[in-house]
Amino acid sequence: MKTQRIVEILKSGVVDTDIVVKGWVRTKRGNKNVAFIALNDGSCVNNIQVVVDLAKISEEELKPVTTGACIRIDGRLVASPGAGQGVEVQAEKLEVYGTADPESYPLQKKGHSLEFLREIAYLRPRTNTFGAVLRIRHAMAYAIHEYFNNHGFYYFHTPIITASDCEGAGAMFQVTTLDLNNPPRTETGAIDYSQDFFGKSCNLTVSGQLEGELGALSLGRIYTFGPTFRAENSNTPRHASEFWMIEPEAAFYELEDNMELAEDFLKYLIRYALEHCAEDLEFMNKMWDKGLLERLHFVLEHDFKRLDYTEGIEILKASGRKFEFPCDWGCDLQSEHERYLVEEHFKRPVILINYPKEIKAFYMKQNDDGKTVRAMDVLFPGIGEIIGGSEREADYTKLHNRVTELGMSERELWWYLDTRRWGSAPHSGFGLGFDRLLLFVTGMTNIRDVQPFPRTPQHADF
Amino acid sequence: MKTQRIVEILKSGVVDTDIVVKGWVRTKRGNKNVAFIALNDGSCVNNIQVVVDLAKISEEELKPVTTGACIRIDGRLVASPGAGQGVEVQAEKLEVYGTADPESYPLQKKGHSLEFLREIAYLRPRTNTFGAVLRIRHAMAYAIHEYFNNHGFYYFHTPIITASDCEGAGAMFQVTTLDLNNPPRTETGAIDYSQDFFGKSCNLTVSGQLEGELGALSLGRIYTFGPTFRAENSNTPRHASEFWMIEPEAAFYELEDNMELAEDFLKYLIRYALEHCAEDLEFMNKMWDKGLLERLHFVLEHDFKRLDYTEGIEILKASGRKFEFPCDWGCDLQSEHERYLVEEHFKRPVILINYPKEIKAFYMKQNDDGKTVRAMDVLFPGIGEIIGGSEREADYTKLHNRVTELGMSERELWWYLDTRRWGSAPHSGFGLGFDRLLLFVTGMTNIRDVQPFPRTPQHADF
Repeated sequence: MKTQRIVEILKSGVVDTDIVVKGWVRTKRGNKNVAFIALNDGSCVNNIQVVVDLAKISEEELKPVTTGACIRIDGRLVASPGAGQGVEVQAEKLEVYGTADPESYPLQKKGHSLEFLREIAYLRPRTNTFGAVLRIRHAMAYAIHEYFNNHGFYYFHTPIITASDCEGAGAMFQVTTLDLNNPPRTETGAIDYSQDFFGKSCNLTVSGQLEGELGALSLGRIYTFGPTFRAENSNTPRHASEFWMIEPEAAFYELEDNMELAEDFLKYLIRYALEHCAEDLEFMNKMWDKGLLERLHFVLEHDFKRLDYTEGIEILKASGRKFEFPCDWGCDLQSEHERYLVEEHFKRPVILINYPKEIKAFYMKQNDDGKTVRAMDVLFPGIGEIIGGSEREADYTKLHNRVTELGMSERELWWYLDTRRWGSAPHSGFGLGFDRLLLFVTGMTNIRDVQPFPRTPQHADF
Repeated sequence: MKTQRIVEILKSGVVDTDIVVKGWVRTKRGNKNVAFIALNDGSCVNNIQVVVDLAKISEEELKPVTTGACIRIDGRLVASPGAGQGVEVQAEKLEVYGTADPESYPLQKKGHSLEFLREIAYLRPRTNTFGAVLRIRHAMAYAIHEYFNNHGFYYFHTPIITASDCEGAGAMFQVTTLDLNNPPRTETGAIDYSQDFFGKSCNLTVSGQLEGELGALSLGRIYTFGPTFRAENSNTPRHASEFWMIEPEAAFYELEDNMELAEDFLKYLIRYALEHCAEDLEFMNKMWDKGLLERLHFVLEHDFKRLDYTEGIEILKASGRKFEFPCDWGCDLQSEHERYLVEEHFKRPVILINYPKEIKAFYMKQNDDGKTVRAMDVLFPGIGEIIGGSEREADYTKLHNRVTELGMSERELWWYLDTRRWGSAPHSGFGLGFDRLLLFVTGMTNIRDVQPFPRTPQHADF
């Protein structure tokens, strides 16, 4: 008999049929005559109840059925007379696939701190919390692909190993096959990277955007969705050394189109989560963040307020609020400023545009005022910036001048500049950190708790 | 007016309507009275024909409209009187976004060799060939996510940076933030990796499988789809240093289920390509590989033959064929052997199972004969092995013995062994190289021509 997943059994509504269920024991309780096993197979947060008549399956046989053990039950699916579940399985036959010695198995039935669970990251997906988080993670990844596929964006694999750090977005990890103990050296004593695997010094990418622009200027609309890296030695709840990023880039999109895309995209994802992850979200809302569902609806139900950075600064200065970091025109906004605008002033998500060029990247389209660029940041409740993007500078001369002005290497950026030499087009894009999106959608507060195997300074386990 | 993509305009069938089209000029031809511009926006392989009445738009204005230039046309969409296209655009207004000087722009209208195009990988997505390949690449990636989502598999992000090389699958790239010029050393003079970013020596992953098994033994069914790396100094048409892999892993799947999954999955992908990429496939079939469509249908229309490695060897030995590499029981099969079985003997795709344990990985389930393991390789026409997988050893003692037998490090593998200590379950999985799948589906013969930015020894450009 084909095994069904528990999520399908619970949803099907079919009863009075023979059934096989396989999964891991969450709990076992009972009395002299009957035992109740809560069985979970990872397909959903809910367990299926297995009822064991001890006249059919002996207490001795049931001994290895402890929390964490993996079993197979052949039996009959029936409507449940008890409260709390619609159906239950009357066991006819038990097979134990794998035991879990209660003396040693770390995940006994009791609350565990997130800190403890991080130490056993290889086991924590077996808990209700991480099962829920990882299923939501899947659903969001799928929704991202679905959204872009439906909107004519092609998935574009930008390189992970790269010789360019043109954006200067952050500290980088070096990738090498040189023998660190005794690296080859040039006559002057410098490391001889011509003997390294790629014939030059290479790093892990910090962003696929520049290559993504090449894609947009040929395929029209593309998106990346891949791992990116930062070698910054920062231990905060929002920074990981390895994280996944989504970067759409579209030819013929101006800033206005880019804003529309960002708002529509984020709302699509949140609507998708509410529709497809209802049980997992309710679990997270109940166990970890009582404001989670409300915050998701808040984003969904409001038009995003669009305004100039300059106006934003004026509002902040006029607010009378004492911020930890003072802000004035020209400053990069801190999370406290962004959250004030969203949560207190406008009471809706905000898209802030036209930032001072000095605090934004070289590739952003320059406004005629000579001071600002067509940047946009999407600001959310609770977390501040969730998306950063811009219309890109399409004019060769302006871009070239900016590269020179900033002392960047034209010799390294020639291919990027070439896209403006031949067949240049207006185009725009943005970046969304997948793990930060997950923080927002799951209500978790530490990035280490939304990634299966987080990489942070001093941590690269499993 | 909202811009439509050319793929949508050509499909819609709507005519006699005002329209805006934007794209890159493929060609311009004409006479004194009229010019014809073939315009492409990357959304599909087909161009839209723009007809310019030189009484409306002057020859002078049309001068910068050369191959590769990016333009916007406001005009009227009408049924085309000419052959070769159903609709055309009568231009009312022209705007040039970006010129492409014919003296310098490398992609003039003429055939270019694949070798030349590799040198300008940053521009080649603008060609018909690479446009087609990259759209097929997108479609296959999307179909993979769709298939697994529909079948209850959760997308699981295994780590890219890892401290383990447990599988020994290949040479690895080192990831470090140490100063190569003057790395810290321990008292004994060895490199002091405790001062490296992660506190130990780390590499780029060669496979997400071991971590994927952790996912399957908690969420039930998972799949990975991410970049993997090999630092092998091999320059073949089938090896890249960076490539994407798909690795599904499912609890409660035995070898038989795994074979069913692999066959159903591959057929789904090929059917998806035929349905969603018909024009691009026809283009590839016409331009690059006249046998492409036939080969795709060949896979789709045959049940995969399943047989034991031992039987396969007997067939090869009885074939009377002189192979470059002789084969006998215990040898790993070469591509020539695999292709003989598929193309000449069975005339259908083959799944070979129960390989000698010595030529397969430590984690494969051991058969009772003490000699073979429950491995499976899926063999395809033209390329040989496209999928490799197995049922995994679920028994702690047997797995532990094999680890010891092979002299592997139990100290590094403790977490993997632990999954068999607690709640072990029968489970299976396989790996599919995404870029090799693309070779099969596009008819290209070099892996460098199905990746946007290939990384191979001495090559990490863009």
